[in-house]
Amino acid sequence: MSVVIDNIGQLVTNDASAGEGPLGIVRDASVVIDDDVVVSVGRRGQVADERIDVHGACVLPGFVDSHTHLVFAGDRSEEFTARMAGRPYDGGGIRVTTTATRSASDDELRDLTDGRLAEAHRAGTTTIEIKSGYGLTVADEARLVSLARERTSETTFLGAHIVPPEYEGRVDDYVALVCGEMLVGAAASGARWIDAFCEIGAFDADQCRAVLDAGRRAGLGLRLHANQLHHGPGVQLAVEMHCASVDHCTYLGDDDIDALAASETVATLLPATDFSTRQPYPDARRLIDAGATVALASNCNPGSSYTTSMSFCIALAVREMHMTIEEAVAAATIGGAGALQRDDVGCLKPGSKGHAIVVDAPSYHHLAYRPGVPLIRTTIGPLGGVRPVG
Amino acid sequence: MSVVIDNIGQLVTNDASAGEGPLGIVRDASVVIDDDVVVSVGRRGQVADERIDVHGACVLPGFVDSHTHLVFAGDRSEEFTARMAGRPYDGGGIRVTTTATRSASDDELRDLTDGRLAEAHRAGTTTIEIKSGYGLTVADEARLVSLARERTSETTFLGAHIVPPEYEGRVDDYVALVCGEMLVGAAASGARWIDAFCEIGAFDADQCRAVLDAGRRAGLGLRLHANQLHHGPGVQLAVEMHCASVDHCTYLGDDDIDALAASETVATLLPATDFSTRQPYPDARRLIDAGATVALASNCNPGSSYTTSMSFCIALAVREMHMTIEEAVAAATIGGAGALQRDDVGCLKPGSKGHAIVVDAPSYHHLAYRPGVPLIRTTIGPLGGVRPVG
Repeated sequence: MSVVIDNIGQLVTNDASAGEGPLGIVRDASVVIDDDVVVSVGRRGQVADERIDVHGACVLPGFVDSHTHLVFAGDRSEEFTARMAGRPYDGGGIRVTTTATRSASDDELRDLTDGRLAEAHRAGTTTIEIKSGYGLTVADEARLVSLARERTSETTFLGAHIVPPEYEGRVDDYVALVCGEMLVGAAASGARWIDAFCEIGAFDADQCRAVLDAGRRAGLGLRLHANQLHHGPGVQLAVEMHCASVDHCTYLGDDDIDALAASETVATLLPATDFSTRQPYPDARRLIDAGATVALASNCNPGSSYTTSMSFCIALAVREMHMTIEEAVAAATIGGAGALQRDDVGCLKPGSKGHAIVVDAPSYHHLAYRPGVPLIRTTIGPLGGVRPVG
Repeated sequence: MSVVIDNIGQLVTNDASAGEGPLGIVRDASVVIDDDVVVSVGRRGQVADERIDVHGACVLPGFVDSHTHLVFAGDRSEEFTARMAGRPYDGGGIRVTTTATRSASDDELRDLTDGRLAEAHRAGTTTIEIKSGYGLTVADEARLVSLARERTSETTFLGAHIVPPEYEGRVDDYVALVCGEMLVGAAASGARWIDAFCEIGAFDADQCRAVLDAGRRAGLGLRLHANQLHHGPGVQLAVEMHCASVDHCTYLGDDDIDALAASETVATLLPATDFSTRQPYPDARRLIDAGATVALASNCNPGSSYTTSMSFCIALAVREMHMTIEEAVAAATIGGAGALQRDDVGCLKPGSKGHAIVVDAPSYHHLAYRPGVPLIRTTIGPLGGVRPVG
C-alpha cells in the first residue's frame, strides 16, 4: 500500500539535483512511499492509497546513527555524576558494563535494547548501527552481535573494545583470540562490520591493524575508534586501511586532517560524548574546510554518552563545533549513511528507503534553534530495516 | 477524588526533614494527592481512590520555570543561525518579535502560547512565569499580561524590556509611560510582578529603579534582568530593592557575589541562553559556595533561548556551570519556587501542590546523565495553577 506525506512546507531531500542548496530543499512538497521505498518526490498534492498531512511542517530523511553501543545492562550514572563533580571514581568503567551485560539474560538484554531503540526511533533515528564490545568472550560477543542483528543490519563486532580482566597483562593473547575464534563466532552471528578502540590503555596501532586485517579477511567492513583521548596513530591507520569511518577524531594533527581530506574514510564526530565527558570538541570546521566528509553519531553507551538524541548532537555540532546547521543536518543523515557505506538511507529520492521524520517546526533550523526540545513529531519507517520497533 | 502515586523507587521531596540529603530523598515511597494538594508522603502502599503505579521510577516535584517570555508571535530562527555561523545579521532582534506580536490577534497568541505551554508541560514544568515585553504600548502590554494571566498566576509586566522604535531617543519619556499609564493597565490586567532589563542599550540603573519603585507602589513584586551582557549595576540594584530574583547574572564582580550571598534575592541562572548565544556561563559555583540561592529557568523566548526544557537547563548546569546534579535539580524546582516567593510548589510535602513528574529512569541523576532525551514520562498537575494545559 502506498502512502503520501503531503503538505510538506520544507523538505530536505539531500539530493542537490532535486532542490535548492546542498540539502536539496523542496518547498510545498509531497513524497510518495510504496512498500518502504520512495517512489516519487514532487509538489504537494500527489496521491497514494493513504495520506499523511503534515500541515506545512519540515520533513527530513530519518537520522542515520552510525555509532552506538546499545546492547548493554547495568547503570553507570554514579560514575557520570562523580566525573562531572570532579570526584575520583574508580568504578571500573567499561568493565562494570561488561560484568552486568555478561550476567544479563538474552531476554533482559532484548528488553533493554528495545527500550533504547524505541526511544531513538521516537527521536527520529531510522537507521542505527549497534556494536558488541561488552561481552569480550567468544560466547558473549557472538551473543551480543546476534542480539543486535535481531534489530538492525548494521552490526559491528567490537571484541577489541578493551582488554578484559581475564587477559590482564596478556594483550597479544587477547588480540589473537579476537582475530581468531571470537571473530569467527561474531561473523557467524551476523556481524557486518569490525571495529577496534585504538587508544592508550586499549589497543595500539599494530594490534588494531591485526584486528582489522582479520575482519577484512572474514568479509567484514572496517571502522575504527581513534584519537578520542589523545593524539595517536589511529586516524592514519584508518585511512591506510580504507576504513568506512574513523570515529571520535577529537585530537587531530595536520597530517590527520590532510589524510582524511584525501580519503574516502568518513570522520564520525560524537559531540555528545565530549559533552558528557567534559572533553574538548573535535575541530569540525578544519575537517570540513579541508574537504573531509563528516558524520554525526550519538555514541549511545552507558559510560561516556548516554543519549539517543541525534537532534541534541546537531545542536552541539552547531553550538560547540561551529558547523552550519546545514552541515550538521547533512552529517546526521547522509553523512551517517556514508559512514555505513549506504546510499539507500539518509536521503529522500526515488529508490531510497522511505524513512522520514516530521519535525514539529517550519524549518530544519529549529533542530539547533530549539535545543533540548523533542521536535520529532512522527518517525516514518522501521528502525534498522530488520523489524519495526516502538 | 484522591490519587496515590505508588511504587516510587526514588522520591525527591525537597524536604530535608522528610528524607535523606538536601533533596529529602525517600526510597520505596508513595505520595497521596487530594484535590491538587499533597496530603501524605510515606512508604509505598498507601491507598487512595485512584492509583498510579510508576514501577520503581524516580518522582520529583514538577519543575518551576520562573523566567519565560512565552507569549509572542514571529520566527527568528534565521537570526539564530546567522549568530551561530558568526554572520552579521541586523534583523532587528526584539523589535522583530514586537512587530509580529502586536500584529497577532488574541486567538493567534493564545494558540501559540498554548502550544508552548503544552510542550513545557510534557517536559515537566508545572509552574511557569510568563512576562509581557513584546507589546511595548499601553494597550499591547495590557493585552499580553492578560493573555498570560489566562494561563498562569505568575505574570510579569516587562514594559521596560527595550525602548520601542516610537520612543527612539526619548528613553525617559518611555520610562515615564511604563511607570504611569502602562503600569496601571498591566496591573489591572493581572500582573503579579514587575521586571526591567538593566543593560547597556536597554535601561540604566536609575531608569530601572524608577520602574521597580513604581511597580512596588502599585503592589507588584519585583524582579530584574541584570548583568547579562556586561558587568553593570543591576545585581546591586536588585539586592538594594529586595527583588525576589535577579536573572542572568553572567558578569558578576566580587561585590555582586557578596551582595547576593547576604541577601534574600535569588540569583536565577539561564544557561540555555548562554548556550544559544555562545556567551560564557555564569559562575554558579562561586555563587553557591558563597551562600547565594540559585534558581534555574529556561528564559524561553524566540531570540536568545528558544527552549522549554528544564531538563536541558539541568544538564547544562551540571556540564557547563559545575553544579552538582543535586544543586541543579533543587535549582530547577524549589529554587524556582523561591524566585517566585512560593512555598507551595517545587516540593512534595503535606500541604504543597500535588505537582509531580515521573522520570523514565531510576534516579534524578539521569536528568543530566541522559542529555537531550525526553525523560519525563508523566507530568501530574496543571501548569500554572490556573487551568490545565496540554
